[in-house]
Amino acid sequence: MKTYLDCFPCFLNQALRAARMATTDERKIKKVVDEVGMMLQNISLESTPPESGRLIYQKVHEITGNPDPYREIKSQSTKKALSLYPYLKSLVENSENRLLTAIRIAIAGNVIDFGPNRAFDMETEIEMTLTKDFGICDYDLFENALNESNEILYIGDNAGECVFDRILIETLNKPVTYVVRGAPIINDATHADARQAGIDRVATLLSSGTDAPGTILETCSDTFIRIYNHAKLIISKGQGNYEALSNQKKSIFFLLKAKCRVIADDIGLKEGDIVLKKGRNRRM
Amino acid sequence: MKTYLDCFPCFLNQALRAARMATTDERKIKKVVDEVGMMLQNISLESTPPESGRLIYQKVHEITGNPDPYREIKSQSTKKALSLYPYLKSLVENSENRLLTAIRIAIAGNVIDFGPNRAFDMETEIEMTLTKDFGICDYDLFENALNESNEILYIGDNAGECVFDRILIETLNKPVTYVVRGAPIINDATHADARQAGIDRVATLLSSGTDAPGTILETCSDTFIRIYNHAKLIISKGQGNYEALSNQKKSIFFLLKAKCRVIADDIGLKEGDIVLKKGRNRRM
Repeated sequence: MKTYLDCFPCFLNQALRAARMATTDERKIKKVVDEVGMMLQNISLESTPPESGRLIYQKVHEITGNPDPYREIKSQSTKKALSLYPYLKSLVENSENRLLTAIRIAIAGNVIDFGPNRAFDMETEIEMTLTKDFGICDYDLFENALNESNEILYIGDNAGECVFDRILIETLNKPVTYVVRGAPIINDATHADARQAGIDRVATLLSSGTDAPGTILETCSDTFIRIYNHAKLIISKGQGNYEALSNQKKSIFFLLKAKCRVIADDIGLKEGDIVLKKGRNRRM
Repeated sequence: MKTYLDCFPCFLNQALRAARMATTDERKIKKVVDEVGMMLQNISLESTPPESGRLIYQKVHEITGNPDPYREIKSQSTKKALSLYPYLKSLVENSENRLLTAIRIAIAGNVIDFGPNRAFDMETEIEMTLTKDFGICDYDLFENALNESNEILYIGDNAGECVFDRILIETLNKPVTYVVRGAPIINDATHADARQAGIDRVATLLSSGTDAPGTILETCSDTFIRIYNHAKLIISKGQGNYEALSNQKKSIFFLLKAKCRVIADDIGLKEGDIVLKKGRNRRM
């Protein structure tokens, strides 16, 4: 997905929010605002938003000296999500369509995001996402692809959300490789976050190697690229991964909630819509 | 009022919105974003927001070549407000406290603002503002000051809003000098807008001389400053005038709706609150 003009004030907003998470020193926070403001001129509308997100959060790190402002909040999100795990499992067990319910739960987990929006309530979000109509639901295509696949490459998004992904992974009943970021960026899941969520018990953990808030292939490790290139079925969680991968010619299913108007417009949805969407161009 | 860190993303958002009003050329709009981004480093937290607003909108003008992007929308707002004039008059005539109702109407008009927020519905806003509790209501102080004054300096804010101000002016029943901006800035009222609203029939029109979206005294004409200095009772409408004048040691009554969290926090209110507030430091 390209960068839209509306992304620019949002970039500045995210920088401000991350800087405030990273430090209480107002001079440093102002310096982040100043320097990110200067960076905007170098951001092309042809780039994807996570490319800029990466540079912006690097700047926050550089100025505040804090490499992981969301560390504590990530751990808290995961603990909170783990406390809901038995409840989420029971929802799946007691549902008519276990796979679809697990998909809905995985999407509900996608609300845990400190990038584009900050205020959310986990329980309310789960309730809503379990009954809400999909904006796009390529469920039959997904079920077919799943039946034909021996393994799944599952690209995770945020910490805390991993617990919700674990529910879906347990329901897929196929070998899954679960992809995390190579370094802390916003509240995106790293190895440590995925392990805290217990993903290592149900899937093989793999770092994409990127330090961007989305799977920008140019920033990923050779190992990841090799596995990605051979993957027959990919699940991509969240906005950042959609923004980075939406133009890829692969069999990717995007699972997300459209948390801002820009991405909703790009997909052709309303803000707040939930999505299970097959990538437009595929080789299958 | 000082500039808060949260003002910076808002400055960029306003620049983007104004640029889109001024031109459809995406390259020019991007250039506005780029250049306003670069300007942020020169904005001190000690300056008032309208000082920066002035420079930002000058930049929009410079890049897009459009000196008055809101001209048409201002005229439409005024026409729409004029169509409500008989209704607004009847509300005052039929109320128990005509002055307080006229004050509420003047505040309701303050929602007509294309700076900090864009979506509003005039009728809904009037309904709400007529019954809503005040966040601060220095009504008794205002009534006393009014009874003791022979004339009022009324500093207007936005076009369209002038019609609502006219209702209050007609209710004050004292000689009023109505102050407009010296040049078009966002949708702020100029001479032409005030005349379209019929203010010239009920008050003496006076330009402050400023081209800022608020009465920054350093940018006002000598004539205005002389009249301002001698004024015994000043009504200041809206956020921009509050931001510019809140530290002034004058008998000023601020009438506004707190349309963003930053100004609400500064005054000690909730976002959306309506206010009739006497300035903190006065010579009276």
